[in-house]
Amino acid sequence: MFILTLNCRRFSVQYQLFDWAQKKVLARGAVERVMVGDSFITHKVPGRSVHHFEQECPDHRAAVELILTTLSDGKVGVIDTSGQVTAIGHRVAHGGEKFTSSMLIDDEVLAAINEMVQLAPLHNTPNMAGILAAMEILPDIPHVAIFDTAFHQTMPPAAYIYPLPYEWYEKYGVRRYGFHGQSHLYASKRAADLLGKPAEQCSLITVHTGNGVSLCAIKNGISIDTSMGLTPLEGAMMGTRCGDIDPGIPPFMMRETDMSPHELDMVLNQKSGVIGITGRHTSRRTVLEEARVGDPRCKTALELESYRLKKYIGSYCAVTGPLDAIVFAYGEGWADWPVRGMALQGMEHFGIRLDAERDRLALAGGGEMLISSDDSPVKLFVVPTDEELVFVEDVAAILAGESSDPARFDYSFARSAGE
Amino acid sequence: MFILTLNCRRFSVQYQLFDWAQKKVLARGAVERVMVGDSFITHKVPGRSVHHFEQECPDHRAAVELILTTLSDGKVGVIDTSGQVTAIGHRVAHGGEKFTSSMLIDDEVLAAINEMVQLAPLHNTPNMAGILAAMEILPDIPHVAIFDTAFHQTMPPAAYIYPLPYEWYEKYGVRRYGFHGQSHLYASKRAADLLGKPAEQCSLITVHTGNGVSLCAIKNGISIDTSMGLTPLEGAMMGTRCGDIDPGIPPFMMRETDMSPHELDMVLNQKSGVIGITGRHTSRRTVLEEARVGDPRCKTALELESYRLKKYIGSYCAVTGPLDAIVFAYGEGWADWPVRGMALQGMEHFGIRLDAERDRLALAGGGEMLISSDDSPVKLFVVPTDEELVFVEDVAAILAGESSDPARFDYSFARSAGE
Repeated sequence: MFILTLNCRRFSVQYQLFDWAQKKVLARGAVERVMVGDSFITHKVPGRSVHHFEQECPDHRAAVELILTTLSDGKVGVIDTSGQVTAIGHRVAHGGEKFTSSMLIDDEVLAAINEMVQLAPLHNTPNMAGILAAMEILPDIPHVAIFDTAFHQTMPPAAYIYPLPYEWYEKYGVRRYGFHGQSHLYASKRAADLLGKPAEQCSLITVHTGNGVSLCAIKNGISIDTSMGLTPLEGAMMGTRCGDIDPGIPPFMMRETDMSPHELDMVLNQKSGVIGITGRHTSRRTVLEEARVGDPRCKTALELESYRLKKYIGSYCAVTGPLDAIVFAYGEGWADWPVRGMALQGMEHFGIRLDAERDRLALAGGGEMLISSDDSPVKLFVVPTDEELVFVEDVAAILAGESSDPARFDYSFARSAGE
Repeated sequence: MFILTLNCRRFSVQYQLFDWAQKKVLARGAVERVMVGDSFITHKVPGRSVHHFEQECPDHRAAVELILTTLSDGKVGVIDTSGQVTAIGHRVAHGGEKFTSSMLIDDEVLAAINEMVQLAPLHNTPNMAGILAAMEILPDIPHVAIFDTAFHQTMPPAAYIYPLPYEWYEKYGVRRYGFHGQSHLYASKRAADLLGKPAEQCSLITVHTGNGVSLCAIKNGISIDTSMGLTPLEGAMMGTRCGDIDPGIPPFMMRETDMSPHELDMVLNQKSGVIGITGRHTSRRTVLEEARVGDPRCKTALELESYRLKKYIGSYCAVTGPLDAIVFAYGEGWADWPVRGMALQGMEHFGIRLDAERDRLALAGGGEMLISSDDSPVKLFVVPTDEELVFVEDVAAILAGESSDPARFDYSFARSAGE
């Protein structure tokens, strides 16, 4: 059984082909510059050199076709024909309130995803395009939608309702949804395993770090709050996104500069956060290096990012009750995130005791690590996240006729590799 | 020495006349409906019945004149002539970065306040009008400006810089300023006294509750963070203001409904918070009563308000270090704020132990009270705030040629009444 996962973004499509029998990734890669010209595929097969191939992809359908052709190519491929693909798991950013777990895509699901496009036009539009293209090319296999928001649907109203006119919620769907669901799910299950405690008895804070950063408060194994909201703009400071600000600032700046709502949205999403403060860098590594040699803006950026993270950790401690662990789940290239250690300093009164030497080792990368001292009441873990594995297992569960309810489903990664 | 304090708002002017020698309030009151027609004054003298008098005040100057006439009126007044007023303290909402303490108003200060009008047009415009009117009517006495923002000017950059384009800070002054400075100052000094500890050794969270609600994190006696920001819209959920929301919501709702920045600002400031959720109530007392008999929206409003307050308390605990006390400073009519007790429940892991019976007593009003249990590591106090006393003492300090630096000045209320 070969499970393909697709993540269609605005101008790129990421993919991974997983061999369920052997429990291993056969190939992964991405088509870049979709729709914008000069597109190309980067195709990686473990143990082989990277395959780079240029081919115009004027739309997402062409990108999906290029992926299937490459996967079944006689020379660089890993399967004989695209007909061997058993099922496809599609990442869908916004599942609204409708979807609390991954779903086999039928007409009804498709219509619902389409309805949700207005909640996240930049994300759900390409997601939709990818689904439609893949269903046209491979109409006879199951297609499964995996929602970024599903894991957070367990939040109580106090966490998801905004103190805004209530009809904005009823009429426009304005509420907290949260994102990075697969990563928070993965991190929480891994933490429970590392703690040697059933997931449903764990109180945790999970922190996903990648281009986006979000936190999740987890009580008894389920999400009770998360920092991203209606959109992925709220919460922690990020590389280019502002996170939390005074809601009086958007109208103030629109009056001062005559920006349109769209222009304002672009600045808050693409020109704020680390790049807004430093004026030039989004790479935390560069920011750290320049801060070390005394660049004042880079120092400010690091101080802001860690200070704001510290406050989030404090606020989530208040709502989870006594905490078992804080888990930092990092995406590709994000092992060396110094902000983590800075945020955790001076929190001994929360029972949080960072081991500086372990944290230094973790900054060099190297998989799952405990970074708290042995006497720390709250354990601190660093975990490389694996969102694709959640996709694959959700697809397999649905193919087997099981529900993939994140709170109950028995994911393989919830048990130690050694078992 | 008679010190008059004036708080000029958009459509009203509040005042208080203080007798410095006797250390007591001679009269207080307000002119309402300034500029909008049908204006009137409500004048209260301790021990006498309330004096209500209708007189048109087409502008703030007319309101200031009416106040001075009433104070020196043969029948209802408390002084013989307005010439007996020694000095006037003017509340100024926004002091920007320029003012770290109260200031004697000269041409330079006046120009600076005028420059800051754009940061807070709704507040500083009437403040300015009141100052100019009073200076014209009583040109020979000292006029002092007391800034809502001054107490928070000790915040470090990590707390006051927003993760936005840095030039927004440099060019437009977009940063966190904070408000309710006099109330946070008063509450922190009272708490230190109640703790029997020097203010400069106290780590506190002060919570001001009135029509606006804001929190302040205080370390070693000074403000290190506060929940209101560039404007008084950020932070806790309030009666009609939303507080913190996803910054993606303003552009989203402007696109969905074609609102202008001004219309959006009005909804966030006047139709959100408690009134946004319940659709009709801002009085917490009514909300509490209706929640008790099962109204779902009123229950949601209380849950949201207390949940969000709990998260703020957690986040400020993370940055203050081990806490001495949390102080709830309430304005007139706000003694019975049930949200306080709801927010403090379930925080035993923070060393916060509310005494339910003491909290019940405090809800009935009655001055300063300890509401934590005797074994609570973090003390919990309820304190009726007295912002006007801070105004008066700042004016007196400046008349005496002393600085009113909030961190150093020896306010009378920093010592127990018995001393």
